[in-house]
Amino acid sequence: MDQTTESVTAAILVIGDEILSGRTKDKNIGTIADFLTAAGIDLREVRVVPDEADMIVEAVNALRTRYTYLFTTGGIGPTHDDITADCVARAFGVGIDVDERARAMLLERHKPEDLNEARLRMARIPFGADLIANPVSKAPGFRIGNVHVMAGVPAIMQAMLDSIAPTLQGGAAMLSETIEAAGLPEGNYAGELGLIAKERPKVSIGSYPAMTPEGFRNRIVVRSRDSAALAEARGAVEALLARLSA
Amino acid sequence: MDQTTESVTAAILVIGDEILSGRTKDKNIGTIADFLTAAGIDLREVRVVPDEADMIVEAVNALRTRYTYLFTTGGIGPTHDDITADCVARAFGVGIDVDERARAMLLERHKPEDLNEARLRMARIPFGADLIANPVSKAPGFRIGNVHVMAGVPAIMQAMLDSIAPTLQGGAAMLSETIEAAGLPEGNYAGELGLIAKERPKVSIGSYPAMTPEGFRNRIVVRSRDSAALAEARGAVEALLARLSA
Repeated sequence: MDQTTESVTAAILVIGDEILSGRTKDKNIGTIADFLTAAGIDLREVRVVPDEADMIVEAVNALRTRYTYLFTTGGIGPTHDDITADCVARAFGVGIDVDERARAMLLERHKPEDLNEARLRMARIPFGADLIANPVSKAPGFRIGNVHVMAGVPAIMQAMLDSIAPTLQGGAAMLSETIEAAGLPEGNYAGELGLIAKERPKVSIGSYPAMTPEGFRNRIVVRSRDSAALAEARGAVEALLARLSA
Repeated sequence: MDQTTESVTAAILVIGDEILSGRTKDKNIGTIADFLTAAGIDLREVRVVPDEADMIVEAVNALRTRYTYLFTTGGIGPTHDDITADCVARAFGVGIDVDERARAMLLERHKPEDLNEARLRMARIPFGADLIANPVSKAPGFRIGNVHVMAGVPAIMQAMLDSIAPTLQGGAAMLSETIEAAGLPEGNYAGELGLIAKERPKVSIGSYPAMTPEGFRNRIVVRSRDSAALAEARGAVEALLARLSA
């Protein structure tokens, strides 16, 4: 992955009624978020929409024009509710048809006589798109412009993500340090932590409470692309916590 | 929860850098999705945005005007990155200040001398809002118009959701039947399943592949608010599967 000092941004669009009904619990957002953070790409927004063409097209266009990359998951199987490819073609204003490269991939898994109309839906690819290999079940994803269209099944999505990783332009990796708040309640340090954050525009500082059987346990996370700024901010936070714990 | 035959819709807005960085894996979307489905409320869209005022305000206004209800999670703690309440006030064009009811709730947990400026941030409530009780850590959420503002910590979010449940107007509950596809590959039944779905506008039909150690296992989910239409569609799907398995 090439690195750049410019900010590289991304959005995720999760497509599928099954996520919105609660029937399927999404795991892809967290996986892609971890992947992008490691790559130095800022994930800026996530949307989840149902299997409805107008909503998918609107979200694809809103997100692809705002961010460096858009990653979609879901809706590329053989059934009638798998309409992602058609919607992405519509969003880009291009045609779509069975792609011979995709058909060849499906033939690695299916006998020619089993490649019925439904399965051939999985070979429908917008004109001008590159294919994303699917080593798990063969039916490919695709990339068109800055939009990467991937499967919803987590194991397949992960395989597709691995295969596109070398093609992405990464930013300077975001560095991160986690500081245990030593049992202090958030409200004890929140005011001064805010001042520390305000004085350091190159650093972002978050405070994250988690409830444990022993009560709240707080952690402060300091993030920056600049290692010197990160170290300095960490020192300031630690000094604050030491003073308040004394 | 009152029931109506009208369609009642909802969106979720998850607010927080920690979700987008992958550091925290969201669990609230799935919890709220299950809750809404049981209540007969259609969850139509989810967005995740960072702790940035412009993005939060834009998302609040886009979602509250489109759907019956908007539920937000995250960003209501005492630290500088907790800006949800201020952003919701801005979205509604109303003022915000320390609310005496909320201050009284905080005093159930904190001694008066510990109620510093940072903790009092948690009592800042937009003018005209109703409070949502927080039995876990006292700092309340609030409701203004059709927007419910809740905590991000899952145990607190769940408690807030329980407390607002009786105030929501539910739709006719969505009924759902899951049919095992008896080991059939999706591509074998996808074409005819699409025809079954197309002929039944009162029913929505989805096919969901899951990868198991034994390979793909498909399930077909039939959903409707009309129990007779649901039973008829289930019969049609079962007849299709029986024929293809024969």
